[in-house]
Amino acid sequence: MEEEKQEKRQTKPIRCIVKLGGAAITCKSELEKINEENLKIVSSQLRQAMVLGQSPSTKVLGMDWSKRHGRSEVSCSVDDFGYDAIIDSSRFIVVHGAGSFGHFQACKSGVHKGGLDQPLVKAGFVATRISVTALNLEIVRALAREGIASVGMSPFSCGWSTCERNIASADLSIVAKAIDSGFIPVLHGDAVFDGLQGCTILSGDVIIRHLAEQLKPEYVVFLTDVLGVYDRPPVDPNAVLLREIAVREDGNWSVVKPVLQNSNKVETTVAAHDTTGGMSTKITEAAMIARLGIDVYIVKAATSHSLMALSGELRSNIPDDWLGTLIRFVS
Amino acid sequence: MEEEKQEKRQTKPIRCIVKLGGAAITCKSELEKINEENLKIVSSQLRQAMVLGQSPSTKVLGMDWSKRHGRSEVSCSVDDFGYDAIIDSSRFIVVHGAGSFGHFQACKSGVHKGGLDQPLVKAGFVATRISVTALNLEIVRALAREGIASVGMSPFSCGWSTCERNIASADLSIVAKAIDSGFIPVLHGDAVFDGLQGCTILSGDVIIRHLAEQLKPEYVVFLTDVLGVYDRPPVDPNAVLLREIAVREDGNWSVVKPVLQNSNKVETTVAAHDTTGGMSTKITEAAMIARLGIDVYIVKAATSHSLMALSGELRSNIPDDWLGTLIRFVS
Repeated sequence: MEEEKQEKRQTKPIRCIVKLGGAAITCKSELEKINEENLKIVSSQLRQAMVLGQSPSTKVLGMDWSKRHGRSEVSCSVDDFGYDAIIDSSRFIVVHGAGSFGHFQACKSGVHKGGLDQPLVKAGFVATRISVTALNLEIVRALAREGIASVGMSPFSCGWSTCERNIASADLSIVAKAIDSGFIPVLHGDAVFDGLQGCTILSGDVIIRHLAEQLKPEYVVFLTDVLGVYDRPPVDPNAVLLREIAVREDGNWSVVKPVLQNSNKVETTVAAHDTTGGMSTKITEAAMIARLGIDVYIVKAATSHSLMALSGELRSNIPDDWLGTLIRFVS
Repeated sequence: MEEEKQEKRQTKPIRCIVKLGGAAITCKSELEKINEENLKIVSSQLRQAMVLGQSPSTKVLGMDWSKRHGRSEVSCSVDDFGYDAIIDSSRFIVVHGAGSFGHFQACKSGVHKGGLDQPLVKAGFVATRISVTALNLEIVRALAREGIASVGMSPFSCGWSTCERNIASADLSIVAKAIDSGFIPVLHGDAVFDGLQGCTILSGDVIIRHLAEQLKPEYVVFLTDVLGVYDRPPVDPNAVLLREIAVREDGNWSVVKPVLQNSNKVETTVAAHDTTGGMSTKITEAAMIARLGIDVYIVKAATSHSLMALSGELRSNIPDDWLGTLIRFVS
C-alpha cells in the first residue's frame, strides 16, 4: 500500500490534513465574526506542529505585510529573512469550514439546492462566495502572521465542480504543486457549479475526504469547539466522550473506548443527535477516511489536546489523559 | 474569421474585457488604499454598460450580503429577487491591476525575479498574494453591490503559470464556464509559479492579452487615471493626447489622429516616457490586441468618456468630443 501511494504521487507524502471547523474559528452566534483568540492559538499550534524536528527559529517571521487597520505602514523587516528563517516544507493542507460566514447567504438563497436561472440563487452564489473568501483571506493572514507560507485556494477558482452534490471534478495538481513548492494550501467550503442542478455548496468535510483519498496523508485532524465526539449532545450532562472508534473494512464502526454498556443504544442516541448536530455525519465522514488506513483525530481546537494531535505524536501512543476522539481502521 | 471564432468556442462571443487600472481604482500614493469614489462610479458604469438593450430595472439589487463595518445585520431583501431582477448574461470579463496593493510586497521581496528557495521571496509570494486577493475581494464586493454577478478568480488558484515570465499554462475553461453561467469573472495580477525561475508576477496586462487572444472579445477597454495615451508624460503642459493609433499587420503602429508634424519625434518622446511611465509598453500591449481586429480604448475611468467606451457605442462612431485613445487595426 505504501509503495502504491509513492508510485501514484511520486513525491513526498502529505503529512497532515487539518480541518479548522467553522465553530472553532468563528463565533457561530454572531454573523461573520472570527474567533480571533482561537484562530491565533490554532495558527500558533500549527506552526509548532510544522517545525517539529526542525531547529526552532527564535523569532516568528510574519508573512502578512498588509497595512493594519489604523496604521499607515506595514511591518516587514527584510533583513530577518535569512536562509534559516522559514519553516521547511511541512506538507500540511488546511481546509476550513464557514461557521458564521457564508451560511446565512447560502441558506437565504438556497444555493445548495441549485437553480442558477433563479436570480435569488445567482445572487446568493455571489454573496456566499464573497463571505467565504473573506473568511479564507483572514485565515491565510492569521497563518502568515505566524510565519506559515499559506496560500488561499478557492475550490471554485480551482475549477472544482460537483454532480448531484458529489465531487465530479477536482484537479489536485495545483494543490500538489503548491505543497511541493513549500506552501501550505488553505482551502474552504465554497459555492461551486454542479453538473446536474447548476450549483451547490461543496462542504469542507467533503473536500477533506477527497483530499485524503487522493493524497493519502499520514493523519487527519478535525479541530472543533468540543472535546470530540460524544454519545449525545455535549450539553447533556450525561454525555460521554467517545475516546476511540474502530472502523472496519466494510465501513461500519463501533465505539471501543470507553466500553459502553449497550452499544446499540449509543448508536441510537448518536443518530438522534444527528438531526440537530450532525455528529453521526461527522463520524461517517471520518470513518470513510479511517478506512483508508489514515488515523483521524477529532479534538477541541486551541487546547493541549489539539497540539498533541497536530504534532502527530499520538500516532505511536495515546496517553490516558489525552481528550479527543480517535477514529482508526482495524482490519 | 468570425466563423473560425465561433467554431473554436462554440458559444456566444465575449462582449468586452475591461481592465481596471491600478491607478484608477486605488490611491497610488497611499499604501493599500482603494479609491472608493472612483470604484463606485466604475462599478455603476459597468452596470449601465451591461444592461444596455435590456429593460432597465429601477432598483439595484446588491449581491454583497456581508455584514458592513459597525453593523450587526446584513442588507438582503429576498423578495426583491424576482425573475427580472438580474442583469442578463452580459459576457464581460473584468481584470484589475494592483495599484497600491501588492507592489510594495512584490518589490520588497523580488517575487518577479523568482527564487522560491530564498525565504524572503517565499514570504514575499505569500504577502503579495494576501495583498492582491484583498483588493480582488473589495472589487468583487463593489461590483456585487451594483448588482453585477461577479466572481473573484485568482490566476494562482486557477492554476495559471508562466515560463520565463510568459504565460505557459492558463486554462480558460473555468473562466468560460463562469461566463456561460451568467457570471462576470474578476481576475487580477497575481504571484504565480514560473517554470524556469520558480515564481514571478503575472501582470493584469498580460492576462488581458491572453484572454483577448483566446476569447476574442468584441472590444477591450483600459480604464486609467489619465485621459488616454499622450505623446509625453501627461504632467507636461505640452503633452498631446493621442486620439487614434493605427496598428498594422506587422504589429507596427502609428498615430493617425491628431496629425502630428513629425511622427518620428513623437515615437521618440513616447519611448522616453516609457522609462518612467510605461506608456510605450501600454501601447505595445494594446497594439497586440488590436492586431487581432479588436478595438482597444484607453480612457480615463469614471468619466462620460469611459461610459461611452464601456457601452460599446464607439464601435460604430467616435464623436469629436470623445476624449481617449482608440487603438485599431488597419489592414
